[in-house]
Amino acid sequence: MTTAVASSPLGLASPARGLECRGCGARFPLAAQHACFECFGPLEVWYDAEAFAKVTRAQIEAGPKSIWRYAGLLPAGQDPAQRVTLDPGFTPLIKADALAAEIGLRAPLWVKDDSANPTHSFKDRVVSVALTAAKALGFRRYACASTGNLANSVAAHAARAGVPSIVFIPYDLEQGKVITTAVYGGDLVAIEGSYDDVNRLCSELVETDDFEDTAFVNVNLRPFYAEGSKTLGYEVAEQLGWRIPAQVVIPMASGELLTKVDKAFEELVASGLAVAPEGGWRVFGAQSQGCNPIATALHGGATEIVPVKPTGIAKSLNIGDPAAGIYALESVRRTNGWMDYVNDEEIRDGIRLLARTTGVFAETAGGVTTAVTAKLVASGKLDPQLETVIYNTGEGLKTIDAVAGRVGPTYHVKASLKAAREVGLVS
Amino acid sequence: MTTAVASSPLGLASPARGLECRGCGARFPLAAQHACFECFGPLEVWYDAEAFAKVTRAQIEAGPKSIWRYAGLLPAGQDPAQRVTLDPGFTPLIKADALAAEIGLRAPLWVKDDSANPTHSFKDRVVSVALTAAKALGFRRYACASTGNLANSVAAHAARAGVPSIVFIPYDLEQGKVITTAVYGGDLVAIEGSYDDVNRLCSELVETDDFEDTAFVNVNLRPFYAEGSKTLGYEVAEQLGWRIPAQVVIPMASGELLTKVDKAFEELVASGLAVAPEGGWRVFGAQSQGCNPIATALHGGATEIVPVKPTGIAKSLNIGDPAAGIYALESVRRTNGWMDYVNDEEIRDGIRLLARTTGVFAETAGGVTTAVTAKLVASGKLDPQLETVIYNTGEGLKTIDAVAGRVGPTYHVKASLKAAREVGLVS
Repeated sequence: MTTAVASSPLGLASPARGLECRGCGARFPLAAQHACFECFGPLEVWYDAEAFAKVTRAQIEAGPKSIWRYAGLLPAGQDPAQRVTLDPGFTPLIKADALAAEIGLRAPLWVKDDSANPTHSFKDRVVSVALTAAKALGFRRYACASTGNLANSVAAHAARAGVPSIVFIPYDLEQGKVITTAVYGGDLVAIEGSYDDVNRLCSELVETDDFEDTAFVNVNLRPFYAEGSKTLGYEVAEQLGWRIPAQVVIPMASGELLTKVDKAFEELVASGLAVAPEGGWRVFGAQSQGCNPIATALHGGATEIVPVKPTGIAKSLNIGDPAAGIYALESVRRTNGWMDYVNDEEIRDGIRLLARTTGVFAETAGGVTTAVTAKLVASGKLDPQLETVIYNTGEGLKTIDAVAGRVGPTYHVKASLKAAREVGLVS
Repeated sequence: MTTAVASSPLGLASPARGLECRGCGARFPLAAQHACFECFGPLEVWYDAEAFAKVTRAQIEAGPKSIWRYAGLLPAGQDPAQRVTLDPGFTPLIKADALAAEIGLRAPLWVKDDSANPTHSFKDRVVSVALTAAKALGFRRYACASTGNLANSVAAHAARAGVPSIVFIPYDLEQGKVITTAVYGGDLVAIEGSYDDVNRLCSELVETDDFEDTAFVNVNLRPFYAEGSKTLGYEVAEQLGWRIPAQVVIPMASGELLTKVDKAFEELVASGLAVAPEGGWRVFGAQSQGCNPIATALHGGATEIVPVKPTGIAKSLNIGDPAAGIYALESVRRTNGWMDYVNDEEIRDGIRLLARTTGVFAETAGGVTTAVTAKLVASGKLDPQLETVIYNTGEGLKTIDAVAGRVGPTYHVKASLKAAREVGLVS
């Protein structure tokens, strides 16, 4: 595939110029390649700085209310007719005064609610960018290794585009995520193992002849895929009036979302599109106790990640061997942020706290972020006087079992005024 | 309450001038009143025609990407600071070429996907309008009788606004809808009975002193509530370039959504905002076989509705005694449309058909609409040469059991290339 791909550019309007190794800095042409031929390090898209400098606020603001308003800062999708997309993005940024009051934040607190995306998680952003690149590069089947949300998104994108899909998931996912993938009619492969096992198998499959025509969004298309997460940084800054918030709290699975939001802020400042807060921004990472390898490395002062075998209810974050973990550590250290983790009971409480105070029903990952935010305020790591944005990346309906035993009807009554009187609903 | 309410207008900018009986035409002041004092007929908001005539396309297009861009055509919400809202609306209108091909439509087919609303159903529209009116009228607790989606929306709106809520549901609702109400922390009352029983009880409760401060969005606030559905007509016309489509297919529970989309089209034409199709538009209604009182009346040439005891999986449509049924009949007859119904098996197939061809995962009501659309094409009632819009009003994740037994992984494999080879994934 490599040769064919190397001769298939992403279109003349793309600001992407190539791929660059995050380890040794070696550069490669734009292609479906994710590891450095020199040092096996992960690759990242590099861009034409002059093209970025030409992007203006006015151009962006005149664009669609989706991630594609930032097409000038993304590797693919400049031509609307060539996008493979459900048009995700420009999700609500919700002022959360009641939540701030409960956890002791005295500066403005905002929830970036990415459950509002078409398949109700932030994965629609990365999938739209990856599959648009995949189409340009000539792939004819769409695939991924997933903890659930990515599976939903790839299957739905493929159905909309009328392209076959094959999605790989651990066998023990939440039913909500299994059904919401299978219903779109593509192939769905349940693997007896953890997400890390699924990911390993996909890395092997992508090298076979049978999968030569297949774009695994988070394996061979990973450099493009990862860039989609930058839009979660761009949008928050634009929604705040082209200001970067002083503090952001971001859930971590591979760690990539955190690094890309940080990268987005850097790009906005470098290109003069947004203003950094006094003293710079601080990036905070949230994990669950059942899968906390990145936070553990930070707490231990390490620069390497020791993989763990994930447990616990925050399945969408259960990546025991996080691909971008060391880069997440770098972002957090460079910006004077911090990381922390919470247990399953705190996650359930976090879901309910967020719902009760904001009207946003988050999946377990959002419970992690909410609970970790409260913990970071309590421990003094998060400055209660600084404006803060927390990211809810998914939808409560997909992990309904997490709270099913904890919430329910407050009254059971027969259908009569007399019965309502007996339980005290009326006097 | 009536006296206090009569002296609490909806604000100077509201185009609403009063309430009017749909039966005898008697007029009343703007207040939390839903039945005519003269003939007990249902009341509807009446507007200042001159105010409507002043609304322009440019004004609307400059507004927010939500229902509030149409505030000039709604009874409440003209002042952004006084809204009680999750800012629903302006949901995607998706071109559905593959679906059209499968069911034999040769003109453009569109899916209006209202699962994209904040609590993932069209109910966010009606709740935002009703509660904004309720706030202006001085109510301090928010309530509803609900088949599920309305419960989700009222509870979430109340949580966001920081106002107490009390929501009444039949005891046998889908778990997805029960949890997604309870998680917001308001009161949730499970009633041993059908939706019609729940509704009857709420009509009694609203008359008690204990509920004097309580806005039941679909009981005492019903005239305002119903107006929110008009936005589903406005948006489709605007998204088509200010053109009204030749045919629309709309699911029916109370029948009100159908009548209000029809009313919206009439208003747009009357005010010169949109253009009607040649020969006028035709309105089609969709029900399930387990609850088909409106379609049965149409098929039998009746003008009255005979209530039924609902059964079947399309619970959000299970209103056996539909309040606006006779008005839905009038709309369909006036526009030369039709109604039909499908059984549970056809509903499940409809959900899968829509998902597979468009990437939209609908709840059972969307399965009803899709399957009825196919049936209307097959029976020749729907003209395959005319542009058609079908309405998906809710989210598949809320009624996941409807398809849970029918879809799932297509492969189960151990985490090795060898195992993948054994099941034929690679050669």
